[in-house]
Amino acid sequence: MAERGAPVRPSGFGARVARAVAATGPLCAGIDPSPSLLDAWGLGDDARGLRAFSLRCVDAFAGVVPVVKPQVAFYERFGAAGYAVLEEVLAAARAAGLLVIADAKRADIGSTTEAYATAWLDPASPLAVHAVTAVPYLGLGALAPLVVAAAAHGSGLLVVVRSSNPEGRTIQEARTEGGTGPAVEDALLAGIAELNRAGTLPAGTVGAVVGATLAPSAFPLSGLGGPVLAPGLGAQGATAADVGVRFAGCPPGSVLANVSRSVLAAGPDEGALAAAARSVRDELAAALARP
Amino acid sequence: MAERGAPVRPSGFGARVARAVAATGPLCAGIDPSPSLLDAWGLGDDARGLRAFSLRCVDAFAGVVPVVKPQVAFYERFGAAGYAVLEEVLAAARAAGLLVIADAKRADIGSTTEAYATAWLDPASPLAVHAVTAVPYLGLGALAPLVVAAAAHGSGLLVVVRSSNPEGRTIQEARTEGGTGPAVEDALLAGIAELNRAGTLPAGTVGAVVGATLAPSAFPLSGLGGPVLAPGLGAQGATAADVGVRFAGCPPGSVLANVSRSVLAAGPDEGALAAAARSVRDELAAALARP
Repeated sequence: MAERGAPVRPSGFGARVARAVAATGPLCAGIDPSPSLLDAWGLGDDARGLRAFSLRCVDAFAGVVPVVKPQVAFYERFGAAGYAVLEEVLAAARAAGLLVIADAKRADIGSTTEAYATAWLDPASPLAVHAVTAVPYLGLGALAPLVVAAAAHGSGLLVVVRSSNPEGRTIQEARTEGGTGPAVEDALLAGIAELNRAGTLPAGTVGAVVGATLAPSAFPLSGLGGPVLAPGLGAQGATAADVGVRFAGCPPGSVLANVSRSVLAAGPDEGALAAAARSVRDELAAALARP
Repeated sequence: MAERGAPVRPSGFGARVARAVAATGPLCAGIDPSPSLLDAWGLGDDARGLRAFSLRCVDAFAGVVPVVKPQVAFYERFGAAGYAVLEEVLAAARAAGLLVIADAKRADIGSTTEAYATAWLDPASPLAVHAVTAVPYLGLGALAPLVVAAAAHGSGLLVVVRSSNPEGRTIQEARTEGGTGPAVEDALLAGIAELNRAGTLPAGTVGAVVGATLAPSAFPLSGLGGPVLAPGLGAQGATAADVGVRFAGCPPGSVLANVSRSVLAAGPDEGALAAAARSVRDELAAALARP
């Protein structure tokens, strides 16, 4: 097991994820009420349909997967009415014992990043979640207020480092330091590892989003010191076996593969949704347990 | 004038900006209801304070500047209640004849980017604005649904290319194509220029956010074919003279410098806010008019 790296220490977001994965498996279920899925479920493309869809997901996934990830854009589509639904869904998910990641991909600097930190990570916020995703185009350092807030509340920040879409490669593979340094994505993974290693944050406060569709990064994920959220399973082309191979070096309980469309397509029946999630979860657990 | 590049054609977001700048000057006024400014204005750090602050800004800036830019994070801090205020503020700004840029810095792929496009650029959305900012970490191509929506509605997409903060340099200056190609920021500016030049979009549909604090980019902004939003004036260190020098090659009416904190600090008095904005606007107009 030496190659798998040291397990995260028993406090902070990393430990929370590890405990949840140990209890319920390595799957994060996306809650993506897109217009096409609302239609496929026979729901209206309105706040009412959004609410029915999302609460059905929470009911179906509670106890079956450890983590859910509502995609914030689909709530923002309905403005304040959509955000009111999102608040209700986040509360329902927390009450059901699920860890909740808001997929918001926020990015900014200074007091604006602080405002995002308050919005998503302050337990007093109506949008409070256990972790939020962020995009580092303005620099990993510009996300510092999110790191500070996550650390203060035992929650997490998941930095999008390697996205699962092909258009992201140009920027994410660009070479730093005038072209002779590490790739942007490797520099970011090293920066995240440094934050997690510094000893000033609860273990595993900062994680990375790393597409399951990609070949391994030059920076070894075994040294990240935080959770990895891996999109790309199912509709985007990666299999559970791919996840097993690509994240083999990560410490036990640090990898969460995300699935959205291919499980949500099993709806609207709650039992069918749960069965679809359970099946992907078990396949993943087996793939990640392989030596 | 040959060095200034050709003016944008009379349709689409670029022409809208050019007309507004010709009528009222080259200034975009930020609406940033941060906790510290709410406090400085004697307002509560709640949705009610947020509303009073924002509507005061709209009243003060209407007729004085052509464009306002609410910073979405400060509304998201209050969840659905904050978004309800934002809807009201956007409607008030539109009704006052202001062009409105939502500073949301959104980033995602596929159907999620489509959802953001609906949220911010569909005229039927409660959050509809004339332009929205986006972050290209997942690739300029991943923002395509925002480009398509902007084109369909004569509105704009402003891609954050060169941010005004120092932490952004590592990624934005990284070299594409294995280290031998153009810098990420130059590749993006070239990509935006190509979109604007293709002839399939209304003129000036895609613009760039380019910090006024930075030295000129290698890619000449005179060839962008769309508006430039330049943050960094005032609190972040750039002067009106800097803006004049740094964006000298841009076509007339294509540059909007943004100011937030240094004007907002003049509040809460409406007359004082308007006077502060007018003063910066006139200084900028003079600086940008210099040959």
